[in-house]
Amino acid sequence: MKKHNFSAGPAILPAVVLEQAAQAAADFNGMGLSILEISHRSPEFSAVLDEAHGLVRELLNLDESYEAIFLQGGASSQFFMTAMNLLDENSKAAYVDTGTWSAKAIKEAELFGGIEIIASSKDKNYSYIPKEYSVSKDTAYLHITSNNTIFGTQYDTFPDIEVPLVADMSSDIFSRPIDASRFGLIYAGAQKNMGPAGAVLVIVKKSMLDKVNRTIPTMLNYQTHIKKGSAFNTPPVFPIYVSMLTMRWVKENGGVEGMQKHNETKAALIYGEIDRNPMFRGTVIDPVDRSKMNVTFIMAEGKEDLEGQFMEMCNEANCVGVKGHRSVGGFRASIYNAMPLESVQVLVDVMKRFEEKYG
Amino acid sequence: MKKHNFSAGPAILPAVVLEQAAQAAADFNGMGLSILEISHRSPEFSAVLDEAHGLVRELLNLDESYEAIFLQGGASSQFFMTAMNLLDENSKAAYVDTGTWSAKAIKEAELFGGIEIIASSKDKNYSYIPKEYSVSKDTAYLHITSNNTIFGTQYDTFPDIEVPLVADMSSDIFSRPIDASRFGLIYAGAQKNMGPAGAVLVIVKKSMLDKVNRTIPTMLNYQTHIKKGSAFNTPPVFPIYVSMLTMRWVKENGGVEGMQKHNETKAALIYGEIDRNPMFRGTVIDPVDRSKMNVTFIMAEGKEDLEGQFMEMCNEANCVGVKGHRSVGGFRASIYNAMPLESVQVLVDVMKRFEEKYG
Repeated sequence: MKKHNFSAGPAILPAVVLEQAAQAAADFNGMGLSILEISHRSPEFSAVLDEAHGLVRELLNLDESYEAIFLQGGASSQFFMTAMNLLDENSKAAYVDTGTWSAKAIKEAELFGGIEIIASSKDKNYSYIPKEYSVSKDTAYLHITSNNTIFGTQYDTFPDIEVPLVADMSSDIFSRPIDASRFGLIYAGAQKNMGPAGAVLVIVKKSMLDKVNRTIPTMLNYQTHIKKGSAFNTPPVFPIYVSMLTMRWVKENGGVEGMQKHNETKAALIYGEIDRNPMFRGTVIDPVDRSKMNVTFIMAEGKEDLEGQFMEMCNEANCVGVKGHRSVGGFRASIYNAMPLESVQVLVDVMKRFEEKYG
Repeated sequence: MKKHNFSAGPAILPAVVLEQAAQAAADFNGMGLSILEISHRSPEFSAVLDEAHGLVRELLNLDESYEAIFLQGGASSQFFMTAMNLLDENSKAAYVDTGTWSAKAIKEAELFGGIEIIASSKDKNYSYIPKEYSVSKDTAYLHITSNNTIFGTQYDTFPDIEVPLVADMSSDIFSRPIDASRFGLIYAGAQKNMGPAGAVLVIVKKSMLDKVNRTIPTMLNYQTHIKKGSAFNTPPVFPIYVSMLTMRWVKENGGVEGMQKHNETKAALIYGEIDRNPMFRGTVIDPVDRSKMNVTFIMAEGKEDLEGQFMEMCNEANCVGVKGHRSVGGFRASIYNAMPLESVQVLVDVMKRFEEKYG
């Protein structure tokens, strides 16, 4: 009974990664010990940490001006840590508000400096990505949420501005190539495209740091973790290990270029069906803003009563996690890197059968 | 080839827990999905979280005046979070310095209020637990490190004072019964007696909170996580699951009373051998201060050159992780809850054979 896992996060991971993860929990690399009970300073785990750091650099083509570290506390902790580390009390940062996660990032950053919301799509329930705005040169950074899991929007291209971008890429990291040089900082909770819950990746341009005067607790200072290669204190060993396995899988499957191609094929298949099928309609206004990670759609006008019937047909076909977030309603199919095309086809077939039955 | 895992942390976990963890990483509860890819808001994981919270309360006999939450960032983040949440700028707290971890806790707390180090065993390389001191009534709390992994000391009884205790119990939580009513807050990184790396348990008396005026980022405020039952943001799903399994194992094996009995038997066996065997000597001055979790010992005077030979015999007998921390030198056998008596006997037998060969 194979399940097709369309959950928004924690989300589907490659089958081979799950097999390797289960094996390591029983016996890691033939050590006679589980990865759950070995020292984070053992040569065996140090090798994992090195490979994980190396894979981030390689997959995103980072040059020496960037550092990559693994932390705990999720992207939610990065909402305040970014501002705490990058923004002085007397300086200002600009934020684009594209939904729930942007709004949370804004709220926390306001504790540390002047925050200007230069654009928002709140007026239309976050169903588009704002595009027309400018940022003054004295702004420390512009913060964006590259993909919005709840509202199903994604930046197709990044803002063309003169200040560094700070991006929450929790839900689309490693899903496509990016020009890293445009980013001052990127953070990503592991539990969508990178691994299981319990680790967060932070990539930071070194020149962004050491510009604030406030006293920062040791654990909240990026420099602490950079200097110790993500092992200042005990890191989340297993979440990092599984993230490393997932990045290895990305590399073996064509890297981020391979992921992009695969993700575009899947997105074309399901958006094509949403547009064709008179029972459904997409929730994102401009097709260019449609997320290739989280596909949000609702019942077509007049068909709202059939929502339960569609969910039931999804469940019968072993398609799980398709229910939409309460902020949008309807349905959400998350089709992250690890989602096979075959599973998207299964869902599309359900949509077709649903039309035949109730259309 | 069974390994006897004497690592200080991440450390040995019960064999049955490792089996269940590996199974859940492959297929959780017959769901057809790995626990690594299910939503943290699924009924299946909500049940895990509920059981984990319930087990903490049950094992430590907590009444309704206490809250228990699981966070990320390790005990290292609690060094500052405790003071940030409990201590106002104009109030003061007392700390006992019993080694590396105490010292780190003191350093971070100093950012938030007046910190008085009322006792320290630094004068004798932290080889004892200070006992004679008093705390003035206007002190917000007294912070102690209940067990010191590096120096092999442990509080046999807790300070008899009038202010609430705040304790780092990272390395001896669930190893013995405690009178919770004497503690205002207890924190414990999972990766010794509770589970794998990636989660930290915080137990707090509700009356300790809401007494500070500073603005606290949402993720750093204990109330945030109390109100949301450890699921304000995505919690570290797998580390919490494995911690829950370990607590379940503690309960099934006599609870903390059963652990205490088991731990005392193991400690008596190895300390007995250290005291008997002329090749070794213990590093802790007063026997009452000896840790029942981390047994530190060095070569007897004049035998220092034989350290390598003893380590080699340990390795041959599959006893791993016995090398002492560089701050103490020599050897450290960590014998946490999950360590079977049989493994301690194997190490003791190595000590005896070592004496026969080189004595």
